[in-house]
Amino acid sequence: MIGIFDSGIGGLTVARAVMELFPHLNICYFGDTARTPYGTKSKDTVTRYAVENTRFLLDQGAKIIVVACNTASAVAVPTLRERFDVPIFEVISPAVDMALSLAKAKRIGVIGTRGTINSGIYERLIKERDPERKVFSEPCPLLVSLVEEGWLKKPETRMIVKKYLHPLKAQQIQSLILGCTHYPIIKQLIARKIGKRVKIVDSSEAVSVSLKRYLDDNPRVMDGLSKGGESVFHVSDVTAQFAKTAQLILNRRVDLQHATPLEC
Amino acid sequence: MIGIFDSGIGGLTVARAVMELFPHLNICYFGDTARTPYGTKSKDTVTRYAVENTRFLLDQGAKIIVVACNTASAVAVPTLRERFDVPIFEVISPAVDMALSLAKAKRIGVIGTRGTINSGIYERLIKERDPERKVFSEPCPLLVSLVEEGWLKKPETRMIVKKYLHPLKAQQIQSLILGCTHYPIIKQLIARKIGKRVKIVDSSEAVSVSLKRYLDDNPRVMDGLSKGGESVFHVSDVTAQFAKTAQLILNRRVDLQHATPLEC
Repeated sequence: MIGIFDSGIGGLTVARAVMELFPHLNICYFGDTARTPYGTKSKDTVTRYAVENTRFLLDQGAKIIVVACNTASAVAVPTLRERFDVPIFEVISPAVDMALSLAKAKRIGVIGTRGTINSGIYERLIKERDPERKVFSEPCPLLVSLVEEGWLKKPETRMIVKKYLHPLKAQQIQSLILGCTHYPIIKQLIARKIGKRVKIVDSSEAVSVSLKRYLDDNPRVMDGLSKGGESVFHVSDVTAQFAKTAQLILNRRVDLQHATPLEC
Repeated sequence: MIGIFDSGIGGLTVARAVMELFPHLNICYFGDTARTPYGTKSKDTVTRYAVENTRFLLDQGAKIIVVACNTASAVAVPTLRERFDVPIFEVISPAVDMALSLAKAKRIGVIGTRGTINSGIYERLIKERDPERKVFSEPCPLLVSLVEEGWLKKPETRMIVKKYLHPLKAQQIQSLILGCTHYPIIKQLIARKIGKRVKIVDSSEAVSVSLKRYLDDNPRVMDGLSKGGESVFHVSDVTAQFAKTAQLILNRRVDLQHATPLEC
């Protein structure tokens, strides 16, 4: 099956995108709700958590790992690839590819958690592939909490989104990468505040497209994956609020199963 | 020495209050920044973390434990008292005592994280001791993130505080318990929004007063504590932002030492 992990519930936006593209594949999701969020934590701590989560998914029978969390994608993927001998997908390169494919968008904005933005990974990857592009990044640390609270349409959320996007608007960006799995949930609000002319790049969509390309090119891997369209959702902590947010994202009732990955 | 733990950095408001009352005592602080926050997590998970943190502080030589975190105080203290044979102080009963000592305040408001408010502990303790009092509780989950971001004076923070306090104001409360260690940092803002007539009960002050009473009554325990006024601050994850918030609370540069409590 395909294993997907995230720091919490937000990564279900990635699971949703993957399930839409591959309705017949089995998916095993792990959300580290007992230690969420990752975006405010250090590289060492996030890497340790990512290793534990990956090991858990492999123990469940995953043959491919998707790191749905942008912060873990930004800081932990080299370690995961070193330690584990399965394909590891992350959400950053696919979003960068998608942003670069918009040839006219020379001024690219990126929003994410403090951990993701401080890593500088989006800027580095974009510049490596096309030095002509200009990249403008803004950390938006409060958006995760606002989304997890379900404050999707409150005036305070609108004000905070506007405040965070203001410097990017001033830089007249032409595309905007949503560098956090929580942001697709308020994509319409973000699109409205940044302006119609700015193309939105959604990393959860981008990673599922990249996974599709990989499986189309590697039919033997595809053949080895279990089918049936069954999804299992594990979380390291279960609360009513987590269940509510999960339902909000997947648009259906979700049975969250409690699981604790072994500590390294 | 006195061991104090919290889910993160907010508990430094308790450490500050204790250090002000006992400038000569040695203090060992542990902030679980690698797993912060606790307020959104379940009772089982928070209890497991509290046991690990207590064990860590005892290993460092603590003879008294102060649970600075309201969520852990609300859900984990019976387990800690069962497992560990040292005095365990928590921040809830002292705040309740202080609120009840304001004899004219019959209508008491309580604000805290979702975990603390859902536990119903403030209401239960107040009603047990004085069934005549009315208690009105409101979870304010976003305030922790706003404080940790240092958004202490932003208009968005003012709006959100006003929104959270609105139902309590409508109930014409006469005192307000700050049931989260982060809230003393925005005490003035809270006081302004709830109105001058409402007495604010600060649980970090309340617990240090209760600790003082205990040590005055138990001079042998006091004699057994190491002196010198030295404080050590351990955290399970170190980032620049945590260091900044710590400095903001203690009003001086703080050397945060990295430590990982053993998992149960």
